[in-house]
Amino acid sequence: MKFSLKITISLKKGMLDPEALAIKHALDNLSFNVESLGTARVFFIEVDESSEDAARQKGQDMCDRLLANPVIHSYEIEVSGV
Amino acid sequence: MKFSLKITISLKKGMLDPEALAIKHALDNLSFNVESLGTARVFFIEVDESSEDAARQKGQDMCDRLLANPVIHSYEIEVSGV
Repeated sequence: MKFSLKITISLKKGMLDPEALAIKHALDNLSFNVESLGTARVFFIEVDESSEDAARQKGQDMCDRLLANPVIHSYEIEVSGV
Repeated sequence: MKFSLKITISLKKGMLDPEALAIKHALDNLSFNVESLGTARVFFIEVDESSEDAARQKGQDMCDRLLANPVIHSYEIEVSGV
């Protein structure tokens, strides 16, 4: 069966996000004056697995082995049928 | 009033996503064999505006002026109160 994984990877709380700081600075220069800014990466992955749990496990394995750095990143996985 | 914007920026349909191709290739090399893979960027921005509509408009302006390239990107804005 096909499942769609939505994996959101963001920096752990307290981690410095230089990219977000730079973007916030640029927005302030354009006089948008935002209070705070954070960033995240999202992956939309379609997998062929026997069950929803197997699909979620595959998502976790992909995060642990490639997509996320366990030291600085946290991730959320949403599974839905296709 | 403070509002929280969640801005999701992704490539328009049909656009080549070299980053996604490279990641899919790496996942296949790790024998994950995914069917398809797409990526998106998410910005969590807190703004101080008079109304929800004003906050949404500010989000659109930020996308049009800095965060998104209108030629290749499409974006979604979710507004919620803080």
